[in-house]
Amino acid sequence: MEAEQKKFLLTAKKSENITEWYTQVIVNSEFVDYSAVSGMMVYRPDSYFAWDTIKEATDRMFKEVGVQDVYFPLFIPERFLTKESEHVKGFSPEVAWITHAGQSELSERLAVRPTSETIMYDSFSRWVRSWRDLPIKFNIWASVVRWEFKHPTPLLRSREFLWNEGHSAYASLEEAEAERKVILDIYEKILKDYLALPGVRGRKTDSEKFAGAIASYSIEHLMPDGWVLQGPDHHSDGQNFAKAFDIKFLDKDGAKKYVFQNTYAISTRELGAMVLTHGDDKGLVLPPKLARIQIVLVPIYNDVKKEEVLRYSRSVNESLNKSFRTYLDDRDEYSPGWKYNEWEMKGVPVRLEIGQREVDSVSVTAVRRDTGKKETVKLDQLGKFITSLLEDIHTNLYMKALKFLESHTYSVSSYDDLKKLVGSGIVQSPWCGSDKCEAKVKEETGAKITNLPSDVQDKAVGQKCIYCGEEAKFIANFAKSY
Amino acid sequence: MEAEQKKFLLTAKKSENITEWYTQVIVNSEFVDYSAVSGMMVYRPDSYFAWDTIKEATDRMFKEVGVQDVYFPLFIPERFLTKESEHVKGFSPEVAWITHAGQSELSERLAVRPTSETIMYDSFSRWVRSWRDLPIKFNIWASVVRWEFKHPTPLLRSREFLWNEGHSAYASLEEAEAERKVILDIYEKILKDYLALPGVRGRKTDSEKFAGAIASYSIEHLMPDGWVLQGPDHHSDGQNFAKAFDIKFLDKDGAKKYVFQNTYAISTRELGAMVLTHGDDKGLVLPPKLARIQIVLVPIYNDVKKEEVLRYSRSVNESLNKSFRTYLDDRDEYSPGWKYNEWEMKGVPVRLEIGQREVDSVSVTAVRRDTGKKETVKLDQLGKFITSLLEDIHTNLYMKALKFLESHTYSVSSYDDLKKLVGSGIVQSPWCGSDKCEAKVKEETGAKITNLPSDVQDKAVGQKCIYCGEEAKFIANFAKSY
Repeated sequence: MEAEQKKFLLTAKKSENITEWYTQVIVNSEFVDYSAVSGMMVYRPDSYFAWDTIKEATDRMFKEVGVQDVYFPLFIPERFLTKESEHVKGFSPEVAWITHAGQSELSERLAVRPTSETIMYDSFSRWVRSWRDLPIKFNIWASVVRWEFKHPTPLLRSREFLWNEGHSAYASLEEAEAERKVILDIYEKILKDYLALPGVRGRKTDSEKFAGAIASYSIEHLMPDGWVLQGPDHHSDGQNFAKAFDIKFLDKDGAKKYVFQNTYAISTRELGAMVLTHGDDKGLVLPPKLARIQIVLVPIYNDVKKEEVLRYSRSVNESLNKSFRTYLDDRDEYSPGWKYNEWEMKGVPVRLEIGQREVDSVSVTAVRRDTGKKETVKLDQLGKFITSLLEDIHTNLYMKALKFLESHTYSVSSYDDLKKLVGSGIVQSPWCGSDKCEAKVKEETGAKITNLPSDVQDKAVGQKCIYCGEEAKFIANFAKSY
Repeated sequence: MEAEQKKFLLTAKKSENITEWYTQVIVNSEFVDYSAVSGMMVYRPDSYFAWDTIKEATDRMFKEVGVQDVYFPLFIPERFLTKESEHVKGFSPEVAWITHAGQSELSERLAVRPTSETIMYDSFSRWVRSWRDLPIKFNIWASVVRWEFKHPTPLLRSREFLWNEGHSAYASLEEAEAERKVILDIYEKILKDYLALPGVRGRKTDSEKFAGAIASYSIEHLMPDGWVLQGPDHHSDGQNFAKAFDIKFLDKDGAKKYVFQNTYAISTRELGAMVLTHGDDKGLVLPPKLARIQIVLVPIYNDVKKEEVLRYSRSVNESLNKSFRTYLDDRDEYSPGWKYNEWEMKGVPVRLEIGQREVDSVSVTAVRRDTGKKETVKLDQLGKFITSLLEDIHTNLYMKALKFLESHTYSVSSYDDLKKLVGSGIVQSPWCGSDKCEAKVKEETGAKITNLPSDVQDKAVGQKCIYCGEEAKFIANFAKSY
């Protein structure tokens, strides 16, 4: 019992040691677990529910803009990756190799999908003939494997993760470019409306972009430790892959042309960002839409009043469980206090405490997870109350994260200020655009350019590069990065 | 253009050479495609849409009975499979082996998930402590890899396929057994309501059951060639895996006990059964709920009337596309006849032909894919007409398949009759229950026992085994099997 009790306690504080806190909270809350395969994790019901909800909402929005789901093989022939790395310098993910199948050795090694460009574009080259076959707007929901991490961390740095892979092909660069805003708008909406996470949208620098892309855009999250975590991204690949995989079409004008392509992705890493952002020293704090259990009902009774309190609790539960995801915790062998700890650890947004006092006054006591605020609510008001409480909790989580982002985004014009602030948030600085200055700042401060935030680029005019003092071309977000 | 035209024609007839017909129809209809990896296929938008619809409907029904989705790693350590094969005789799927990752050789080989019992139950053994932790009713939607097929066939025998893996653990055998009906009822409903496929439910014989199970139940489909294709199944694994992976719980009575487990699955093979059952010499015939495009509108015009017909077609489309999945085929470079062929090949349930005559009479001509029947419908009746037409088409497909199943299920009591009928359907025969008779019939006729159909077992009473003449214990379905 004592060992069990410890399960729902954290020894690390978020403000003191966020790494240790994170490791404790995601496992102790039964959100995820380690598996027998190093670096690969188990999604328990709460984390999978959250991901599945994100997936379904994103998929719905993708479909509204004409994206079609498909599925491509899990394995990729080695020659495809070789071809890719010849055409796309710098792209060589560490992959898991299949060398044997059944009793025999394969004549060619197969990689477990690290990303699907090559296997998909091999098909595209056979499918695309005329302008009539374009645009292609395909998407896969899949798991991918990258053997990259020396120190894997569940959700944040996993050797297997789940994501969407959007892959499109257009007849013109203009059409291809127009997709970026559509997709990033969808991602931003998902982050805001489901994960309660704000982000900073902007272009990646050439040294930070996807190797195969002519331009990469990302949404970056600021974590409570002042470090930045990359969120969803969208890459304009131009004709790079089209040329490598010979994807040509006969255009209306009778000419054969290469297609223009994009890729984009959101992954289970977002769940890690969500945990880091909203969690506290009591455990997870889940945004209501992603909570598998939104409301837990905890009856409080002594032996005499037990049946009455339980009966009342059940009727409250029944009045709620058609509109909300509820759980009546009527386990006899645990005390109410124990149950509070457990459900707080698991991040359930609302707890309803129901004792004799509540039975007598035909009410419940509602406790919100995000602020801990208690309120007594009459039963006939409860449905309405919960609806607006869940909205409130979501908004509060988002606004708190947004305020943190805003108050930890610093605009500086001197390198000294940058050095002082790096590590405590995002440092927006004018930048000349040269790889050299970018590399020097990274070398000297440990901060990279997370992206070039779209909304403030006009401020670069007339400013000087934070490092070399030459004319600035961009406002760059410097930060330490996960 | 000619090569393209051929794409939507079939040279093989279903009634003459169903194997060749199948291969042509699934690829030419752009339902699926081959990939660069032998035995692994591409799900193009139409097949993925169908699978995703099945998946979502099944998942909804699973959730209603308390099943929770989770996700477990794609890779499984070799020692787990070794442990399994020590405990579960006869279970040794041909797997794909990871031996290298990144630049280094792994110290232990990892198998790509052929099924997840071992990796899941390793976690179960850590998660299950008390009766309070039970039941576990988990499910994964995943892709699995089995390197088993010398002659892979898309959907029917693929080295990678998509499926659900249900894995449950109960405190008692009674509870575990009670799950079977719940799950098989769900599968049967999905088959009937979505795939328009009937099936025969029954227990597998000991020689045909899953090696790890104490009892396996299946739903078997009869294909148009008289062969049987196994559909979804449910396995009672008793305490086999619990003992192998040490999954014990402290029961209410204070005793430590092993859990009782089940597994169950439905896979993308069902799409193959659907194609085989409903398709015809013009191509696919999709049940309306699984059709990504339910209605195609084909405008018919000459140069003079073009704009008027197109305008009218667009307004018809707009009146339908809120309630149905429609596509207006306004491609100028193809003739209406070409378009009819193409959409018939792709199995779109309803075609609306719209020419000057339809414009003038404020109507459309509706052609249903399953029977080819044409009907002129006034525009103000169209929504209602389409709703009932789609239902009609679904019912017709199901009833046709059911009639075929019923008329090709033969009840015999002599071995001569069995031998005559094997290959042309399901031959129901009394059977003594011995492995020997089962094996002998298989050896002599090529027919195996697909299952022991649940609904006719009472008929075994007083009958003699079809092979040995001893007292019959079961009615067995003998058939050739995919």
